[in-house]
Amino acid sequence: MSNIKRFSVIYSLTGAEKDAMQKAKDICVEQTIEFPVDLVKNEYIKSNIVGRVESFKKSGKKHIAEISYLNDTAGGEFTQFLNVVFGNSSIKPGIRVEKIIPSKEIFNIVKGPRFGAAGIRGLTGIYNRPLLCSALKPMGLSVKELADMAYKFALGGIDIIKDDHGLANQPFSPFEKRVEAVCKAVKKANRETGNKTLYAPNITADAFNTVKRAKFAKLSGAGCLIISPGLAGLETMRAIAEDASISLPLFYHPAFHGSYVVNKDSGISHYAFFGQLMRLNGADAVIFPNYGGRFSFSKDECAQVAAGCRDVFGGLKPILPGPGGGMTMRRIPEIKKFYGADAVFLMGGGLFAEGPDITANCKKFRELVG
Amino acid sequence: MSNIKRFSVIYSLTGAEKDAMQKAKDICVEQTIEFPVDLVKNEYIKSNIVGRVESFKKSGKKHIAEISYLNDTAGGEFTQFLNVVFGNSSIKPGIRVEKIIPSKEIFNIVKGPRFGAAGIRGLTGIYNRPLLCSALKPMGLSVKELADMAYKFALGGIDIIKDDHGLANQPFSPFEKRVEAVCKAVKKANRETGNKTLYAPNITADAFNTVKRAKFAKLSGAGCLIISPGLAGLETMRAIAEDASISLPLFYHPAFHGSYVVNKDSGISHYAFFGQLMRLNGADAVIFPNYGGRFSFSKDECAQVAAGCRDVFGGLKPILPGPGGGMTMRRIPEIKKFYGADAVFLMGGGLFAEGPDITANCKKFRELVG
Repeated sequence: MSNIKRFSVIYSLTGAEKDAMQKAKDICVEQTIEFPVDLVKNEYIKSNIVGRVESFKKSGKKHIAEISYLNDTAGGEFTQFLNVVFGNSSIKPGIRVEKIIPSKEIFNIVKGPRFGAAGIRGLTGIYNRPLLCSALKPMGLSVKELADMAYKFALGGIDIIKDDHGLANQPFSPFEKRVEAVCKAVKKANRETGNKTLYAPNITADAFNTVKRAKFAKLSGAGCLIISPGLAGLETMRAIAEDASISLPLFYHPAFHGSYVVNKDSGISHYAFFGQLMRLNGADAVIFPNYGGRFSFSKDECAQVAAGCRDVFGGLKPILPGPGGGMTMRRIPEIKKFYGADAVFLMGGGLFAEGPDITANCKKFRELVG
Repeated sequence: MSNIKRFSVIYSLTGAEKDAMQKAKDICVEQTIEFPVDLVKNEYIKSNIVGRVESFKKSGKKHIAEISYLNDTAGGEFTQFLNVVFGNSSIKPGIRVEKIIPSKEIFNIVKGPRFGAAGIRGLTGIYNRPLLCSALKPMGLSVKELADMAYKFALGGIDIIKDDHGLANQPFSPFEKRVEAVCKAVKKANRETGNKTLYAPNITADAFNTVKRAKFAKLSGAGCLIISPGLAGLETMRAIAEDASISLPLFYHPAFHGSYVVNKDSGISHYAFFGQLMRLNGADAVIFPNYGGRFSFSKDECAQVAAGCRDVFGGLKPILPGPGGGMTMRRIPEIKKFYGADAVFLMGGGLFAEGPDITANCKKFRELVG
C-alpha cells in the first residue's frame, strides 16, 4: 500500500556483504535527509522520507539493493528526482545505479519521447529494417562540401543524415548556413529518389542558443535534431523534446557523458543511463558506441542499451538504439543479427573507407542492411 | 607562433608507453575530426584541425600527454570547447583530463566568477578567516522550522546559510515560501547581531525554473545562490552567473556530478573539474566532500580542488573551496591548517551532534575557526 507513493532504484554495491549492506543503509540517508538519523525527532521524516532498503541480495561478486523513496522527495521535478536517485551517491565509489523503477507519479513529471521508434519510422517510411545513418564530417569542411556530401548520402539511401557531433557553429561551417544548405541538398535528393531522408542538425550550444537552433532547424526543414545533453544540459534537451512548436525527433549523443558509464562499479548502468534516463529525458533515438569498434563497450553492455531503449517503461514509447563508432561494412550482417530490425545503424568513417564513390558506398550499406 | 591560436589539455593515460602514446594519437582525432586521417584530402584539416601531441612523458604508473587544439574547433562556444576537451574521450576508459590550458580566445568565451573569493568576503565583511557555512536540513521540515533554524544559525555567527541541496520545491517546504521566510529570519538575526549573514537558496530545477528561482531569490533578498549544475545543466548555471540582473554569488554543489571524478583513471581530475571547469562556468565557491568524512576524497585530491580554485587562471578571479560532508567540531583545527583562511567550511549534521542548542553550537564552530 505504502509503495503506491514510492519509487525505487536498484543499486549494485561493491564490498563484502556487511560493507554492501552498510552502503545500502547509507544511501537511504545520503539521498534524502543527509542528516544523522538518530537526531531526527520527526517520526514522518524518519519512517517515510528516509529511503528504505526493500531488498538486498548477492549477485556475482557484488550485492544488489532495491531502495525505495517517497514520491514527495522528488517534489514533482525531474532534476530533484535525479538528485534522489543518485545526487550525492554519485560521488561515492562502489555504488552503481542499475535500474530505475519510477512510480506513476514520477512518470507523470515527464512527457518522454514524442516520436519514439514508431514515430521515426513513420517519418522515414521505413518499417521493416534497421534505419541507416551517417554523419557529415570531418570538421573543417565548408558548408558547400558538407551539403554535397549530404546529397550523396541521400542519393545512396541513407535514412538519417546527422551533423557530426563536433559540428557546432565554427567558422568553417556556421550553423545557420550549414543547416539551410544541407536541408536544401537533402530535399533535392529526396525529390530525385522518392525517399524521405531526414537531416539531423547538431543543435548543441548554450542554454539559449540550443533552443534557438532547434527552432531555426525546424523552420529550415530539418527532419530531426541531434543533441549532446552532456554539454547542452539534460534539462535543455527535455525542454526541446517537450516543446510542441519544435516537434522533431531527438537523437541523443553521449559526448561528455561517458564518465557516467565507463567504470563498472560506479556511475549508472548502460541500461539505466542510455535507455531509461534518456527516454525519460525525451530522446527518440540514442547514439552510443558499438561493441568491437574503437570504444570499449562490451556486447552485453550494448544489449543492455538496446533493452533499455525497448523494454516496457511506464507508458513511454520504445526508442531506437543507434550503435555507431568504428562500424564497417563487413560487420553489418553480424550487427544486424545482434540488434534486429528496430535500430538505427550509424556508419561514419567506415562509409568513406570503401572507396571514393560515396553514393555507391551508401548503396552497399543499404544492401547489407537488407 | 601557431600556439597563439591553440589551446591545450593535459591528459593522463593508462597502459604501457606504446599503448599510452596510441591513446594520445587517438585523442587528437577523436576529439576533432573523428574520421580516418589518411582519407582526409584537405591539408589545413590534417595539419591544423586534428589535435597535436605537444609533449608526452612518463609520470608514475601513467603517461601524461599535452594535446593542443585549434581555437576554431571550439567555434567561440563553451559547450563545443568542452566537447573538444573531452566529448567522445569521456566514453573511453584510461583517459583522464588532468588540466585545461585555455588560450586567451577561450577565456574570452566566458565571463567566469562574478564575485570570486574577494567578492564574497566583501558581502559578508569577513576578511581574515575561513567563512562558516551550514545547511538547512533535513528534508521534510516545514518552512517555519527551516526559518527558525536559519535564525539560530545566523545568531550563532554562521556566515553562509544554504539550503540543503535536496531542498527543491517539495510540498513540505515549497521554494517560494521557504525563500521568503528564511530571508526574513536571516534579516532579523542580522539586525540583532550586526553581522552580514547570507542565505543561499537552492535554485536547482529545470532550465526555465532555475532562472526563475534565481530571480525570485534575488527579489526576496537572498545573499547568494546554490546550484547543482549536474542536474540543472552547466549552461543554465553559466547563464545565471553571467546575468547582471541576478548578480549574486553562486555556490556550486556536486550532486549528480561525482561520476566525473570518482575513478582515478578516467573522467576529469579534481583540479580541473571542481577548480578550473567550475571557475570557467561562473562558480564563486565550490562545495565538495572533504577528506576523512563519509566520502572518499583523499587529502591530496582536496588540496587539488583548493589549488584549482585559487591558482592563477587567465584573468579569472580566485574562488572559495568549500569542503563539507561529515565535518565535525574536533576536526576544525586540522582542517583550518590544511585549507588556510581562504575557504568556506561547511558543517551540516556535525553542528547538530554537539547538543540541542544550535546557536551555542554555531558559536563553538565560530570560536574553533578563530
